[in-house]
Amino acid sequence: MTYCCAIKVDDGLVFAGDTRTSAGVDDVRTYNKLHVFERPGHHVFVVLSAGNLATTQWIVNALRRDNDNPDAPQSLSMIRHMYDAADYVGGLSVRAQRESAQTAGQTATNVDFRTTLILGGQVVGEEPALYLIYPEGNCISASPETPYLQIGENKYGKPILDRIIRTHISLEEAARCALVSLDSTMKSNLTVGPPLDLAIVPRDALRITHKLRLDLDTPYYAALKKSWGENLERIFREQLPKFDWEPDPAQQQML
Amino acid sequence: MTYCCAIKVDDGLVFAGDTRTSAGVDDVRTYNKLHVFERPGHHVFVVLSAGNLATTQWIVNALRRDNDNPDAPQSLSMIRHMYDAADYVGGLSVRAQRESAQTAGQTATNVDFRTTLILGGQVVGEEPALYLIYPEGNCISASPETPYLQIGENKYGKPILDRIIRTHISLEEAARCALVSLDSTMKSNLTVGPPLDLAIVPRDALRITHKLRLDLDTPYYAALKKSWGENLERIFREQLPKFDWEPDPAQQQML
Repeated sequence: MTYCCAIKVDDGLVFAGDTRTSAGVDDVRTYNKLHVFERPGHHVFVVLSAGNLATTQWIVNALRRDNDNPDAPQSLSMIRHMYDAADYVGGLSVRAQRESAQTAGQTATNVDFRTTLILGGQVVGEEPALYLIYPEGNCISASPETPYLQIGENKYGKPILDRIIRTHISLEEAARCALVSLDSTMKSNLTVGPPLDLAIVPRDALRITHKLRLDLDTPYYAALKKSWGENLERIFREQLPKFDWEPDPAQQQML
Repeated sequence: MTYCCAIKVDDGLVFAGDTRTSAGVDDVRTYNKLHVFERPGHHVFVVLSAGNLATTQWIVNALRRDNDNPDAPQSLSMIRHMYDAADYVGGLSVRAQRESAQTAGQTATNVDFRTTLILGGQVVGEEPALYLIYPEGNCISASPETPYLQIGENKYGKPILDRIIRTHISLEEAARCALVSLDSTMKSNLTVGPPLDLAIVPRDALRITHKLRLDLDTPYYAALKKSWGENLERIFREQLPKFDWEPDPAQQQML
């Protein structure tokens, strides 16, 4: 499994993902799931992936090959509208899965060739956009009411996104929330693991301004984890309202 | 679906559950999933249930019938050890599922008769204990390393339990954490819904000292939700460490 999320706020886009790939508890590897395609000033695309690793690599290779081939009928460099990019990537995903199934033929046991993707970015002259691309090739976009998208092991990390993500928060606040969402998921599920990748694409920058790889001992991530844990404990110890039968320290001081 | 959790801290036990039962999005009802069996001073048992409602009601009815029948070969009133209680309830659960399947016979379509239970409490002269009873009738207990148990839709509400629940925290802190865990789950999953039930069993009290039903507009629950949301937002806005490229307000004041 995997866990990736992407957030669209007024100021731009945030992408985050883990790097653990597992084909069983005894077949665990580390792979980048955050793929960048950019020509600064013209376009920037980020692809996050969850699902069959071979299918994902097929898609990413096809995207790079098309980009390098001026005669390719379609490529990310030619895209003028974000929706067309999602449609193009969705088409590649379906082709990858179909070819894998055909190649495997009757040798295929119960392999699941499906991959779910998040594609986000901005093309010059267009608004930033974020899409979730289903294994079937179709897609849905993020919206002001649904400003984040998740793929993979999404349940553990959803509550904190629901509480914090609003379109008016800063890119950095959104990035911190994505990291906490990933951290919560890693604590609860062995198939999601460090290091984490984070990319920030400010509106109209048309490039990635910050790309971080954070391991458990990377100073910023270690500080974030510590502060988050301590702050949560303090809320529970000091801030939340007491039941009516509990002694209220403030009251006692007044007596 | 359903979401219930129970927590074992040094000071005793906390039980919490939602009340939504659904057999589809258009067949939603409200049922109590927190069942109490107590003879104050002698024993107190709490049963939480997730799964087939008919199976659960069969089990709860059997527990009450055995309790009222002095000739019953076994009953919660006769139990001397907590493990025996878990074993007895597990046996009833298996019988309930088997009888349902036999009665349904060939008319049964794809009905899932399984129920997963949490049983906790204390018998005079014994330690408090907490068990998760699988549909197969066997059970696992809570422990100092694993001080909480969950049944039903457990993923959304797990991270906050992992962060906060330690055996040394107070019963009230554990109760607040259980409510936040339920609240997070309700926000993310339609099959878990209010009102919530909460029961607190202090060590050696041999009875439930506090039993609350909390709806969205119950003053304590409304205050808890508000405080939790505001505190989380404040942590993200003010407390978490900034990325190194962000302006640090404290630094600016010093200049």
